Amino acid sequence: MRVSDLRFDENGLIPAVVQDAQSKEVLTLAYMNEESLQRSLSSKETWFYSRSRQELWHKGETSGHTQSIVDIRYDCDQDALVVLVQPKGPACHTGTFSCFNDSLLNENRKVESNDRFAILSQLEKLIA
Amino acid sequence: MRVSDLRFDENGLIPAVVQDAQSKEVLTLAYMNEESLQRSLSSKETWFYSRSRQELWHKGETSGHTQSIVDIRYDCDQDALVVLVQPKGPACHTGTFSCFNDSLLNENRKVESNDRFAILSQLEKLIA
Repeated sequence: MRVSDLRFDENGLIPAVVQDAQSKEVLTLAYMNEESLQRSLSSKETWFYSRSRQELWHKGETSGHTQSIVDIRYDCDQDALVVLVQPKGPACHTGTFSCFNDSLLNENRKVESNDRFAILSQLEKLIA
Repeated sequence: MRVSDLRFDENGLIPAVVQDAQSKEVLTLAYMNEESLQRSLSSKETWFYSRSRQELWHKGETSGHTQSIVDIRYDCDQDALVVLVQPKGPACHTGTFSCFNDSLLNENRKVESNDRFAILSQLEKLIA
């Protein structure tokens, strides 16, 4: 599979689900164009395309919270990516580990324990 | 947060990352319109909008491989969802557990152990 064989949409973008390689929590849904994907592949850090700013965006360039790439997977339709990363800090611009912190099913509940070691906390609770 | 407060795109769609609630593997990236999200919320099973067929799509309606919804989370921009599910069978139309089975970094390696109990297999390897 070459990058040019992936199916970018009519705006030249492909959605990239950024997932923490350790806890498996989904951190962000971002978008890549071919150039940001090539830069991600060569630097092994995440580069995206900002749809609002219409420019390439090296995650963590200003904050220092870069994301080291462990693997990039593509789906059966070749039109979506999962990027497994080791984050150097919060993924979200609000300062949280993940961008997905709120539940649509239970408004009063903030999503718990969405950190790198969530699975260990769960195991601890199970054993205790 | 009401469903109508979410930010659907210019085609009335919002991307939904479908994630196995147990193993945390990403199963599919699909799209919902407001109606499919409302049906998902009321039935507690995943309904999507098929961009190719331009119709609502109840996952598993023909295959029986429905997905019971455990939680639905929205992100800081209210323009993406993570749907945590308990799947009754393979998520992918190719018959695999997840749609993300191939690595862009290592062509020769099929993605391993992406089943519901992946974490247990990993723990087993670690302990053995």
